[in-house]
Amino acid sequence: MSSNTFGKLLSVTTFGESHGPAIGCVVDGCPPGIAIAPEDFARDLARRATGKSRYTSQRHEADKVEILSGVYEGKTTGTPIALLIRNTDARSNDYAEIAQIFRPGHADYTYWQKYGIRDPRGGGRASARETTMRVASAVIAKKWLKEKFGVEVRGWLAQMDDIEPDLPKDAVIDFNVVGGNPFFWPVADQVPELEARINALRKAGDSCGARVNVVATGVPPGWGEPVYGKLDAELASALMSINAVKGVEIGAGFASVAQKGSAHRDEIRLDGFTSNHAGGILGGISSGQDVVASIALKPTSSILVPGRSVNTAGEETEVRTKGRHDPCVGIRATPIAEAMVALVLMDQALRHRAQCGDVGEVRPRIPQR
Amino acid sequence: MSSNTFGKLLSVTTFGESHGPAIGCVVDGCPPGIAIAPEDFARDLARRATGKSRYTSQRHEADKVEILSGVYEGKTTGTPIALLIRNTDARSNDYAEIAQIFRPGHADYTYWQKYGIRDPRGGGRASARETTMRVASAVIAKKWLKEKFGVEVRGWLAQMDDIEPDLPKDAVIDFNVVGGNPFFWPVADQVPELEARINALRKAGDSCGARVNVVATGVPPGWGEPVYGKLDAELASALMSINAVKGVEIGAGFASVAQKGSAHRDEIRLDGFTSNHAGGILGGISSGQDVVASIALKPTSSILVPGRSVNTAGEETEVRTKGRHDPCVGIRATPIAEAMVALVLMDQALRHRAQCGDVGEVRPRIPQR
Amino acid sequence: MSSNTFGKLLSVTTFGESHGPAIGCVVDGCPPGIAIAPEDFARDLARRATGKSRYTSQRHEADKVEILSGVYEGKTTGTPIALLIRNTDARSNDYAEIAQIFRPGHADYTYWQKYGIRDPRGGGRASARETTMRVASAVIAKKWLKEKFGVEVRGWLAQMDDIEPDLPKDAVIDFNVVGGNPFFWPVADQVPELEARINALRKAGDSCGARVNVVATGVPPGWGEPVYGKLDAELASALMSINAVKGVEIGAGFASVAQKGSAHRDEIRLDGFTSNHAGGILGGISSGQDVVASIALKPTSSILVPGRSVNTAGEETEVRTKGRHDPCVGIRATPIAEAMVALVLMDQALRHRAQCGDVGEVRPRIPQR
Amino acid sequence: MSSNTFGKLLSVTTFGESHGPAIGCVVDGCPPGIAIAPEDFARDLARRATGKSRYTSQRHEADKVEILSGVYEGKTTGTPIALLIRNTDARSNDYAEIAQIFRPGHADYTYWQKYGIRDPRGGGRASARETTMRVASAVIAKKWLKEKFGVEVRGWLAQMDDIEPDLPKDAVIDFNVVGGNPFFWPVADQVPELEARINALRKAGDSCGARVNVVATGVPPGWGEPVYGKLDAELASALMSINAVKGVEIGAGFASVAQKGSAHRDEIRLDGFTSNHAGGILGGISSGQDVVASIALKPTSSILVPGRSVNTAGEETEVRTKGRHDPCVGIRATPIAEAMVALVLMDQALRHRAQCGDVGEVRPRIPQR
Repeated sequence: MSSNTFGKLLSVTTFGESHGPAIGCVVDGCPPGIAIAPEDFARDLARRATGKSRYTSQRHEADKVEILSGVYEGKTTGTPIALLIRNTDARSNDYAEIAQIFRPGHADYTYWQKYGIRDPRGGGRASARETTMRVASAVIAKKWLKEKFGVEVRGWLAQMDDIEPDLPKDAVIDFNVVGGNPFFWPVADQVPELEARINALRKAGDSCGARVNVVATGVPPGWGEPVYGKLDAELASALMSINAVKGVEIGAGFASVAQKGSAHRDEIRLDGFTSNHAGGILGGISSGQDVVASIALKPTSSILVPGRSVNTAGEETEVRTKGRHDPCVGIRATPIAEAMVALVLMDQALRHRAQCGDVGEVRPRIPQR
Repeated sequence: MSSNTFGKLLSVTTFGESHGPAIGCVVDGCPPGIAIAPEDFARDLARRATGKSRYTSQRHEADKVEILSGVYEGKTTGTPIALLIRNTDARSNDYAEIAQIFRPGHADYTYWQKYGIRDPRGGGRASARETTMRVASAVIAKKWLKEKFGVEVRGWLAQMDDIEPDLPKDAVIDFNVVGGNPFFWPVADQVPELEARINALRKAGDSCGARVNVVATGVPPGWGEPVYGKLDAELASALMSINAVKGVEIGAGFASVAQKGSAHRDEIRLDGFTSNHAGGILGGISSGQDVVASIALKPTSSILVPGRSVNTAGEETEVRTKGRHDPCVGIRATPIAEAMVALVLMDQALRHRAQCGDVGEVRPRIPQR
Repeated sequence: MSSNTFGKLLSVTTFGESHGPAIGCVVDGCPPGIAIAPEDFARDLARRATGKSRYTSQRHEADKVEILSGVYEGKTTGTPIALLIRNTDARSNDYAEIAQIFRPGHADYTYWQKYGIRDPRGGGRASARETTMRVASAVIAKKWLKEKFGVEVRGWLAQMDDIEPDLPKDAVIDFNVVGGNPFFWPVADQVPELEARINALRKAGDSCGARVNVVATGVPPGWGEPVYGKLDAELASALMSINAVKGVEIGAGFASVAQKGSAHRDEIRLDGFTSNHAGGILGGISSGQDVVASIALKPTSSILVPGRSVNTAGEETEVRTKGRHDPCVGIRATPIAEAMVALVLMDQALRHRAQCGDVGEVRPRIPQR
Repeated sequence: MSSNTFGKLLSVTTFGESHGPAIGCVVDGCPPGIAIAPEDFARDLARRATGKSRYTSQRHEADKVEILSGVYEGKTTGTPIALLIRNTDARSNDYAEIAQIFRPGHADYTYWQKYGIRDPRGGGRASARETTMRVASAVIAKKWLKEKFGVEVRGWLAQMDDIEPDLPKDAVIDFNVVGGNPFFWPVADQVPELEARINALRKAGDSCGARVNVVATGVPPGWGEPVYGKLDAELASALMSINAVKGVEIGAGFASVAQKGSAHRDEIRLDGFTSNHAGGILGGISSGQDVVASIALKPTSSILVPGRSVNTAGEETEVRTKGRHDPCVGIRATPIAEAMVALVLMDQALRHRAQCGDVGEVRPRIPQR
């Protein structure tokens, strides 16, 4: 019920502000016996981290995870797993001058209105720094999903500003390429173009939006709980809760609007579905096809181009956000989106096991194509 | 926690199958003292109902609501409000021949895989008949929101197949026009074109998708709970849980991807925000601007055009869905989308009052433009 | 989260007032494939019902259960199961004169203070009539627990007024005897004494309290979720939520206070625990021993002896509760207490399966003695 | 939903093992603007702490609270408040020899059966060390309750072994006396007798049980949510979830069993209720009288008297618990019980404000006597 808790059975509670002493999370409901070590978190946290290339914010955080509980002799015990990361490179001075001003496009005004008080340092709780703990907790989910079901959750940048991958629509993504550049871009040849675009934006003091796609392979049929706990409904919530996300699609998404029923519905053969407009979900339950989601991320609001605003004294003013910011927050959203998808899937897997654990496998079972 | 319950403080639990004896819901957590009568439900249920025009399914249901509890001498008492509607026009024979076949694009296969058993009559629990109770329960939410805050939640069809309203992008919608045609279309002159399209689809035994927009006016700043109970995250879940929805946008949605930060962020003046790309939500909290959401609905999968499929015996077969179906389910989704938005808003309003009830109004407060 | 919903995975939402048109419940999260028929509910509902003997209230309700959803061809489908019982013998006239008076010992004053409105007919929502749906929903839980695990949940009256069963403390209860008298009393010879006591109370226009014990046999080790979802914590909540309950004990209960540690702790041998002061629960998790709980029920507040009170006009007055009441509500609480224990156990069983479903059986396993 | 989370709107998630690196909690849903400083935690933590007298365990922990988030410039911001305490005096060697043995009366066997793995150091998660965070988080609740409503929650030891306070049944408790001795005992003259009893038990290598009473004064009428979120039901769960608790009573508790209705029901006069057998709760809602609860705590199972048990190899063995233990865990339970009552009350206060915030004060309102 807590608004900083995500998930019903595998529940992740995060805490911490951008420039507070630490951020952390508590992962509860995790099955016992999963091998977890501090170094397991390093890879995905590095993928999400700022300061790894010139194309993201230059804040450098070690993001060293301390496991405070729930793991004994290297294995989860079934009790809550607390993870802690100390903030080390917070520069709150950057924010002194905007403490009384509501930055346009930010949560400053709304936190102020809701709570009557706000921590202005680095955006406080509204900062994308919070997403670090989503990625950290999802490391456990990804591990369990892979070891137990062979499920893999992987994302890529599918659009940046108006640049789209130079690939056919249904091309198989090469995740080695995606992992080989700081943009999570699936076409190596286009990376210089992306670099140029970011450099141009930085020079202009501006920013751009992005689209991130995520696909989960190996998901068995049966995960998802109609009618309000549908797999797609929970993916939508999970993904929309990521900072800067303004849209979520499952499968064909908004393209469905202009499709005919005869084209959209995925026909079924014993060797697989003939297409996947559904994005692997029918009636809120996984079908055994790839689960496919796509999100829109708005352009970073923290830019050097001055913007008109008001302050807490009720005066009109202008704001120019200095500090260290991403020209395109969407780039680093790729591992965050993967994380949210993984958390939803593991939670649903546990819920399915709870309710239907004694049903057994039901025939016929259509394979992934 | 229950997967058929929606909302945290204002919680709606629905039950019932398309062709079972009845559908119903229990609305819990409702404030006491709200005047409610059976006839209050009639208007919105009629808007959602099939059989009102030739452009929707020809199933005729009286949709007469019986209030079983929670209302005393015409007012809510704070105890659970149970609403019941008997199914009267179920024709299960229509489904006899497809009981063993998985209709493409339907939940047949996934329910079978999850539960090992399914009620095939009219889609059982996966039928859009369930949404009747969303609309019914939201009648209470709409009433409370309007009386207490002046909030109004209204939707319209914003695209059908490839037809878009012949209106400028930011035109003010005339809801008298929307309410005056069976398509919830905001431009009266285009209605014959829509009729022709539906007639053509029906003739072809095919169907099309749609886009529905919903706007909530009068929402005060402060509603929404970061970081996992964000107002937009919950709207996304609420809307994606509606049958056939494949995408959700808030504000500028996917158009944000190709926007610049300087264009997207809504600047703030004392007399209002200068634009509303955010869709009235910043950091997961309402800003006092209009809350704007848009959804994509896939084309109806129940069509006469034969589709390839398999059956429970593990054989390949073909299916041609007879029964009574909507050529475009998106049309009737308008009141359903409004309902889900209203339920989310009322729930968040109660949650805000719980946590921040003693904060009082915070200055400066930017008016809606 | 809804306050009229009980349970996390197997969740029961009840609704209805004592003298409203109907009472009912929605059971969500139930595993599919359980055979359920309307007649399954008859036995336990009859055990709880009033009017079956002269020793309870003379309200006669048919308590005929209609299954509205969630069951197809006699089996649960995994979708919500709605059960409905129409109220047929409500005599609201009995309550006309007390509509403006707060009966001492009743919820009249507190509902009034909380909601500013109340349904005075038969106690409205605060009536024990609500417990009918607890018993009805638990029929499903009892069936599943028995078929899947061999778990049986059975209760008896362990004290009425100052009369205690004429049995040694650790005597094995003969449930044939318990089932053979309207008092759920385990010693047949004492039944005339109980009858005489009730007759005397009725004559005096007074009432008495009772103690009910419940034991669950066959519970496997491992059910219960530390630290706030402990099995004993949830039993305490479940039992305390029953009307008129003022105390809950697990195992030795309050007798533990004056015990020594060397006497209380149950030693462990490979053929079983040597005693069961723990009541089958250690650290909030079932140990495989009998789960044993005991509750105290206060004397009925609805009595003919006049009581001093106040009315809604703020005047002091006197009240004498007519209507049809139980001289000892505790008697009929036996099946209700069983129901709550069964609901808790099934819910915990599902939660255990979710989190630890792949642990397998752990050795050594100590048998029940 | 998480089993290590307590509360619906004010939710407390605790983590940490007795001998892990740290224990902590996340308090979510807290209203903004409450002044909180690290030193606020000191008083109640000291009351709960071991090692403060010879009558408790000799483990010495600094219990220094670090506030990691949710507080800005000394005030709560409405975002999650994370509190952390490092464990500094863990002596895990004490537990090496019992790692493979199930101590009778402990959670060793049940954790093993549930999870297939357990942290044996100091009882791991099942240790009463976890209750430190209950006390810490309740500091915030106590502060808010007192400042906003004048509510105070205070407890005392009401029985130790067979020693009862030498006071009339309805005597007013002098909390200066309670606070002036390490037993939380309300009669100063009896303290030497308690000391002698503890010394004798320690010498005998044995332990004893205790009863703790808690009273909350100043609670307004209207808190509590029928029918499953009743105030008494949630108090029962909260109190039963404390380590070693085996029984919970509200008001007259088990004494109600032998009471007559005419004696038990508390009559109402305009200047107050004439008695308080209800313990301040009617129909699950506070009545405005003192809220009164009482709990039974079993004798410590960790004693030097050898006990028969089995080990993980499936062999019978004997165990003698060394380490540092309390001869009567019930003594230190007083601030823990207060904490749980305070957390329940604050949570219910927020829930009441959510649902009934616009009802206003309802007349007539009966004062506390």
